[in-house]
Amino acid sequence: MESVAKGERPVDAAMRELADLPFRDLGFARVDHHRHLRRGLPEVVLGEGKTAAQIAGIIGELLTGSGGDGGPVLATRVDAAKAAEVERLVPAVRYDAVARCLVAGERPFVDRGRGPVVVVCAGTSDIPVAEEAALTATLFGSRVDRIHDVGVAGLHRLLAVRERLEAATVIVVVAGMEGALPSVISGLVGRPVVAVPTSVGYGASFGGVAALLAMLNACSSGITVVNIDNGFGAGFAAALINRKDD
Amino acid sequence: MESVAKGERPVDAAMRELADLPFRDLGFARVDHHRHLRRGLPEVVLGEGKTAAQIAGIIGELLTGSGGDGGPVLATRVDAAKAAEVERLVPAVRYDAVARCLVAGERPFVDRGRGPVVVVCAGTSDIPVAEEAALTATLFGSRVDRIHDVGVAGLHRLLAVRERLEAATVIVVVAGMEGALPSVISGLVGRPVVAVPTSVGYGASFGGVAALLAMLNACSSGITVVNIDNGFGAGFAAALINRKDD
Amino acid sequence: MESVAKGERPVDAAMRELADLPFRDLGFARVDHHRHLRRGLPEVVLGEGKTAAQIAGIIGELLTGSGGDGGPVLATRVDAAKAAEVERLVPAVRYDAVARCLVAGERPFVDRGRGPVVVVCAGTSDIPVAEEAALTATLFGSRVDRIHDVGVAGLHRLLAVRERLEAATVIVVVAGMEGALPSVISGLVGRPVVAVPTSVGYGASFGGVAALLAMLNACSSGITVVNIDNGFGAGFAAALINRKDD
Amino acid sequence: MESVAKGERPVDAAMRELADLPFRDLGFARVDHHRHLRRGLPEVVLGEGKTAAQIAGIIGELLTGSGGDGGPVLATRVDAAKAAEVERLVPAVRYDAVARCLVAGERPFVDRGRGPVVVVCAGTSDIPVAEEAALTATLFGSRVDRIHDVGVAGLHRLLAVRERLEAATVIVVVAGMEGALPSVISGLVGRPVVAVPTSVGYGASFGGVAALLAMLNACSSGITVVNIDNGFGAGFAAALINRKDD
Amino acid sequence: MESVAKGERPVDAAMRELADLPFRDLGFARVDHHRHLRRGLPEVVLGEGKTAAQIAGIIGELLTGSGGDGGPVLATRVDAAKAAEVERLVPAVRYDAVARCLVAGERPFVDRGRGPVVVVCAGTSDIPVAEEAALTATLFGSRVDRIHDVGVAGLHRLLAVRERLEAATVIVVVAGMEGALPSVISGLVGRPVVAVPTSVGYGASFGGVAALLAMLNACSSGITVVNIDNGFGAGFAAALINRKDD
Amino acid sequence: MESVAKGERPVDAAMRELADLPFRDLGFARVDHHRHLRRGLPEVVLGEGKTAAQIAGIIGELLTGSGGDGGPVLATRVDAAKAAEVERLVPAVRYDAVARCLVAGERPFVDRGRGPVVVVCAGTSDIPVAEEAALTATLFGSRVDRIHDVGVAGLHRLLAVRERLEAATVIVVVAGMEGALPSVISGLVGRPVVAVPTSVGYGASFGGVAALLAMLNACSSGITVVNIDNGFGAGFAAALINRKDD
Amino acid sequence: MESVAKGERPVDAAMRELADLPFRDLGFARVDHHRHLRRGLPEVVLGEGKTAAQIAGIIGELLTGSGGDGGPVLATRVDAAKAAEVERLVPAVRYDAVARCLVAGERPFVDRGRGPVVVVCAGTSDIPVAEEAALTATLFGSRVDRIHDVGVAGLHRLLAVRERLEAATVIVVVAGMEGALPSVISGLVGRPVVAVPTSVGYGASFGGVAALLAMLNACSSGITVVNIDNGFGAGFAAALINRKDD
Amino acid sequence: MESVAKGERPVDAAMRELADLPFRDLGFARVDHHRHLRRGLPEVVLGEGKTAAQIAGIIGELLTGSGGDGGPVLATRVDAAKAAEVERLVPAVRYDAVARCLVAGERPFVDRGRGPVVVVCAGTSDIPVAEEAALTATLFGSRVDRIHDVGVAGLHRLLAVRERLEAATVIVVVAGMEGALPSVISGLVGRPVVAVPTSVGYGASFGGVAALLAMLNACSSGITVVNIDNGFGAGFAAALINRKDD
Repeated sequence: MESVAKGERPVDAAMRELADLPFRDLGFARVDHHRHLRRGLPEVVLGEGKTAAQIAGIIGELLTGSGGDGGPVLATRVDAAKAAEVERLVPAVRYDAVARCLVAGERPFVDRGRGPVVVVCAGTSDIPVAEEAALTATLFGSRVDRIHDVGVAGLHRLLAVRERLEAATVIVVVAGMEGALPSVISGLVGRPVVAVPTSVGYGASFGGVAALLAMLNACSSGITVVNIDNGFGAGFAAALINRKDD
Repeated sequence: MESVAKGERPVDAAMRELADLPFRDLGFARVDHHRHLRRGLPEVVLGEGKTAAQIAGIIGELLTGSGGDGGPVLATRVDAAKAAEVERLVPAVRYDAVARCLVAGERPFVDRGRGPVVVVCAGTSDIPVAEEAALTATLFGSRVDRIHDVGVAGLHRLLAVRERLEAATVIVVVAGMEGALPSVISGLVGRPVVAVPTSVGYGASFGGVAALLAMLNACSSGITVVNIDNGFGAGFAAALINRKDD
Repeated sequence: MESVAKGERPVDAAMRELADLPFRDLGFARVDHHRHLRRGLPEVVLGEGKTAAQIAGIIGELLTGSGGDGGPVLATRVDAAKAAEVERLVPAVRYDAVARCLVAGERPFVDRGRGPVVVVCAGTSDIPVAEEAALTATLFGSRVDRIHDVGVAGLHRLLAVRERLEAATVIVVVAGMEGALPSVISGLVGRPVVAVPTSVGYGASFGGVAALLAMLNACSSGITVVNIDNGFGAGFAAALINRKDD
Repeated sequence: MESVAKGERPVDAAMRELADLPFRDLGFARVDHHRHLRRGLPEVVLGEGKTAAQIAGIIGELLTGSGGDGGPVLATRVDAAKAAEVERLVPAVRYDAVARCLVAGERPFVDRGRGPVVVVCAGTSDIPVAEEAALTATLFGSRVDRIHDVGVAGLHRLLAVRERLEAATVIVVVAGMEGALPSVISGLVGRPVVAVPTSVGYGASFGGVAALLAMLNACSSGITVVNIDNGFGAGFAAALINRKDD
Repeated sequence: MESVAKGERPVDAAMRELADLPFRDLGFARVDHHRHLRRGLPEVVLGEGKTAAQIAGIIGELLTGSGGDGGPVLATRVDAAKAAEVERLVPAVRYDAVARCLVAGERPFVDRGRGPVVVVCAGTSDIPVAEEAALTATLFGSRVDRIHDVGVAGLHRLLAVRERLEAATVIVVVAGMEGALPSVISGLVGRPVVAVPTSVGYGASFGGVAALLAMLNACSSGITVVNIDNGFGAGFAAALINRKDD
Repeated sequence: MESVAKGERPVDAAMRELADLPFRDLGFARVDHHRHLRRGLPEVVLGEGKTAAQIAGIIGELLTGSGGDGGPVLATRVDAAKAAEVERLVPAVRYDAVARCLVAGERPFVDRGRGPVVVVCAGTSDIPVAEEAALTATLFGSRVDRIHDVGVAGLHRLLAVRERLEAATVIVVVAGMEGALPSVISGLVGRPVVAVPTSVGYGASFGGVAALLAMLNACSSGITVVNIDNGFGAGFAAALINRKDD
Repeated sequence: MESVAKGERPVDAAMRELADLPFRDLGFARVDHHRHLRRGLPEVVLGEGKTAAQIAGIIGELLTGSGGDGGPVLATRVDAAKAAEVERLVPAVRYDAVARCLVAGERPFVDRGRGPVVVVCAGTSDIPVAEEAALTATLFGSRVDRIHDVGVAGLHRLLAVRERLEAATVIVVVAGMEGALPSVISGLVGRPVVAVPTSVGYGASFGGVAALLAMLNACSSGITVVNIDNGFGAGFAAALINRKDD
Repeated sequence: MESVAKGERPVDAAMRELADLPFRDLGFARVDHHRHLRRGLPEVVLGEGKTAAQIAGIIGELLTGSGGDGGPVLATRVDAAKAAEVERLVPAVRYDAVARCLVAGERPFVDRGRGPVVVVCAGTSDIPVAEEAALTATLFGSRVDRIHDVGVAGLHRLLAVRERLEAATVIVVVAGMEGALPSVISGLVGRPVVAVPTSVGYGASFGGVAALLAMLNACSSGITVVNIDNGFGAGFAAALINRKDD
């Protein structure tokens, strides 16, 4: 191997070999049986922009294909109609209609976290995104404490849950409209906050841009942000942050 | 209580107690029976982004739940189909199809204002937003004088209503397209103007952005602005400005 | 006059006559000696985009020109260099370096308001805009109570001034970055809030756009918004809202 | 009348009288029977954002209401379904399905122009907007010469029609995508060009913004621009420019 | 020539010949001695983005180069420093410091228009752009009537000049901030309006975008728009529209 | 011909003749029978924004009209419903449901390229755009090698295909979301990369803008970019780049 | 305390007391001597938008004012000129010219983290932001490992540091231009990534927006994002995530 | 090596070795002595955002450092002041003031291309970007033919150079303002066009965005686009496309 590092052509040769890893080509998607090992975490399929047949095909391969390890698999952003069709094709899946996610090959929960992940949402309309985050964090080994409907217009509601917020290792805050909730929560408790802007709002909310910008410009420190409506990303990041050190 | 203020932990303790206020958790929304008292004004539910079942549940709780005080309740941005479903679940509601609002537990009008709120709109297509403002201001205790279809392209129509404009304590001006009406009205009469841009228009109106920007840059003074299509916000602010001093 | 209303040409004739109002043409600006009467308020000159000579010329005409009434005059958005030059040309002016405003012909304060206007700002960098608002409201006949540096990241600071906030007839809230302060203040006290986004911030604050959008999308009710950094507009609107009924 | 000009109140009084013009209030729209006289041109109703019943009501009033003069009336941006409903309510209308316009009370064409208006469009998909312009210009008294499908990718097609372009008093150029056609045409012939960007395109055309910006930044001189897809505005402006001097 | 049109290759050949027109290559700019003839109008140089040496070189070539015809030449968007340097290199030029333009080879004014072009501006800060338009229209053969400082916040000023507006063949309206003036003027008088948004304003004026959008969305008809601050383009288009028919 | 170049009028005369080229007017589209010859490539119809009847009419004319040469013809951006209707009207077409394209008059493949065009896509949802590119490149005479689902999150998959990438004359890289794939591929292999951003994503992907901007700002050299979702444009450009020198 | 929770007024009373916390008013800033305790972390002053005198005043108060605890204090976004002036006023500060930060009252480093924070930057121009992050993380108790200049255009450089990346508890990735580095790093190693877009770039990088959008849309999971150029925010969040559990 | 591919850990081990490539760490930049070999092309340094000392350091290392191969090196986007300082530190460099580039270690030109690269620019102000492209293409082994100042407003100038355009292997088209030139050129000649939008323009050109969007939406086929003002990127891509097949 030492000779490899000395010139350019040998590097190429080595790289070509290295790439010969065990993944299987479904035609429309390279299903990666090792990503699981490499990241230490389950497989995730982004349902949006894929047909039900494609989702079912990928889930099936991951569950029972050659090299498939039986799961778990999480498919996000799957609407009810598409979910029904996938369930018909792969009966082993379970659909969470609030979080709009499909889960397959679920296993008994093992707590891999240093503490609870608290998922807070500002309003009733933010719940689907919050639930996507909560479901994701759970599947990735974190206990989740859910707090709904505690917007900045009613601070006393927020103060009522302060103790639960302080118990968190990391807090996921989901809010649309003016997106001020992460600033206020981060100012109250010294925990890492993963902020999720939602597309809840109208007019100059521009599909969540107002909330996104507010969160990026938060005057409180310790806040990081994910994409609009990206409950999965927030739940995943929270679980990763929360993970017990190896 | 004096000892509370001396250190940090006791503050926390006090805050935890304070937060123990009477609100009831519906699972999807914390219905706040005291907001009414604290703000001196009825409850409002933003209908957009909520299911008919959620709207009905919140209205029901506010009307007849433990601690519910019978109303009034205003639900905004409810389309006709959703309204019909809510009416089926909570028969006591009334639907205003132009303003796209549901009202429940309405009470006899008591004038709490220093004078009339005038609601002006520039074109026929702006009427729904203007009516949302007018309905809101009425429910919050202001007499409303409505003036429709007096755009800047026909100044004589505007001059015809100048006396009514001058009689106002506050004027709500609703306009889409180039959003010039607030500037012209504010230049004519020395009253506070709450400007509401609407999404009426096409092409480079960008869903109301052109009108919003015009209103924010008005060369006349005394104009403040709310979100695009936010008739509720304008009606509420107008009623608050108009309120007789306590 | 009755015959005027019957046809189109006579209307034109009348309008032509009506337009013959006493204003004087300086070449670069029509100085309006009656605007003062018509609006019941002093003259204001937007300094930005005008040369020092132009500002001095307009102020001079308003103070001592034919039909000039001696003031008061307020010139906004005047930087220190330009102010020095105007002071050289029109010695009677006073420069407020924090608010970046020139005042001429100032008169003894007469309280024309129903109560105090409270001007709150979120951070030290927002002070110039807040002072522009405070100076304007004062000149237009409102007592002003100033509260500085009470951002949402430290809620206890805000709670410390709650009583002063509740004493206001109208509250001007000045904030940059994520612009969350108006939401929180409006949720605490039932007063009309005029929100002023500032260009304080960097990166994705986009020169105040983040704060502007947050304020337009505020989930608390009773908030109206003015242009970015428009302290004058907020102070003027607040004074107009606060004005004792005629 | 001379005394009117001396003070503020009399001006007001006069203005109030002047405003007493003959227009009739339909509840949802002030139908103006004199606009026709004052502008010397027919009535136009923007169909978008109005219900079929509203459009029919306004057309009916203009045709046969008290003070109605029988037309002509042009209603723009009316889709086929809405048009069918209006035709049922007001049988006297004619629908132009390509231009998506309703016409009522049409009169024999009288040429009021100094020459022809040429309407050019870049591609097949731009035809509806071009036809809206052509129909409008015709109704407002201009002869129209239509040239379709002569984009900048095939210059020889453009050169083939150069003589017709040079015969125009004013040229309306309709183009989507990169919106380059007005620059090229204006560079070829020394005629005023009214450029209409269309929403034809996808991706980074942003609903016509790319074409709009290109037209505003045209390096050829003599080009002015209207709103995206605003065939009516272009046809109207062209007819106004083309009008024989009174 | 007839044989040329029958196939593709010969077309190419002809085009190659045709292109052999008399223009001269300065290295940095192809100075076109025939554009003048082809468009029937003087030469224009956009000064912005060019060095003083480049501007002087182009002007010199147009005045006295082989094929140069002595002018006139108009160079726009030239700041005072650059103008001084050009004047040093080409003494025959004249600098208009308000319009920020250089003129060379000016000739006695010959009225080529059907009537006057009226140039209106909303505020003192808009004057430079208005003067660029007025100077351009004059050089291109139109009489110009200038009206300054008649914004929408003081309608009586506008009514005072209504007669002059009605005398125009075409009206150029220059306005920044909310850009409402073209709508109001176009609603008053039935003349073609060329609207020029300016970058006057701050905050959410976004360098003239607010005014630009307002003008594109004007509810009055007969308005066409040019680029922000493009006084030249508006003056040129107005002169072209105003030109006596050949 | 030499005399033509000496003055302006003769040029015009010549241009008028030149324009008399053989194209046929269908009313809605000028079908150009010579474009094929002039560019050396088949005809393309942009299906978006055209009705099925228009598409069928154009295809029919190109196949069998006077001067029609039988194809091939490619119609892009045709959805399944429209395709079915076109197939009913012009049975000779073939529909590629993945690429959403219609092909008519297809001919046996002749390799006109210097090597293979490799089309890479980042995710399953990007396949339709990749297939549009691949189909286009094939029809325009390039051999295509397809590589699917090799995003930057799994570099080993990319390394596995490095040899195929290096064999390409030009690489088309199709990616949505963060659009990072072209940078990484261009950094690996020294081939021209044509990058196609797709609208795959949600929230702050803004319909492909995020990917578009990433590709335009790529830190690797040798990348050029086409419009969002413009598989056709990328395939065409790749085939043109790949074409054997004449 | 129990009685407090029963009604609204007592809550107010309690809140008023609670707010009586020990902070001191400097006129321009409320210096908070307890924030330190409440968050368990040093004081931070955003230097941007503050004068040198203001910065010096705040630092002085925090170091030696009544209740001041001697530091440490970190002032960010301070340019060299301002820093020199602050150093003159408060000699005890140290200026980090690369990170553009002032530090005062620095204490011996105590490792409070679970492991190292790795700070990676893509290019030489990103170093100032990376250093701001590294300095912040260090001050807040994390060991930092710096890796510079490992962009996606040269993957082998990245692979060379893979082991150091895998040793991190959390990775801060700083990149401008297309912002692809976080995606690639997150795909390689299963650690939480805090991504910092920088304003490095030109043209369509739009001051860092391209990188920001790319990072928000990253296809790899486990990435969260802070504001453009917000090295402080990323360093703070990283230290908070890395903090040993209490 | 075969055993490497069988599991995950060995892959890591191999990758770690592979990464041990000969690059040298300057502290602020990893200078890569092998990139040259791997890409077969010279080193390029983006001067923008780097200090003169950094640029000089990198150039010096590449010329004479351990592993340095003497060049050539190209540093782009270097203004005159910075260039002078670099020249002082590394006397061997040459500065091209028009293209704003530094070159070091230049070698005799060897034509590696299949034909000439033609670089066309629309206006005098676009020349610096065009020269950056031309210099880059030359350094990377392509003969360059330069055509300046042939905008779409004067088509005859363009026709005059048609033959030179047709002789190109690839055409780089540089244009600001409305960016229409690539469409017109691509419609004339069947060659690959690399389009470079420039920031030349004002107002609604938005720093080159108008031209960028126009180019992305070009209706002619065969156009690909690079970043605004990215002459280097276009020249590099053109040389890569033009390169003789290996």
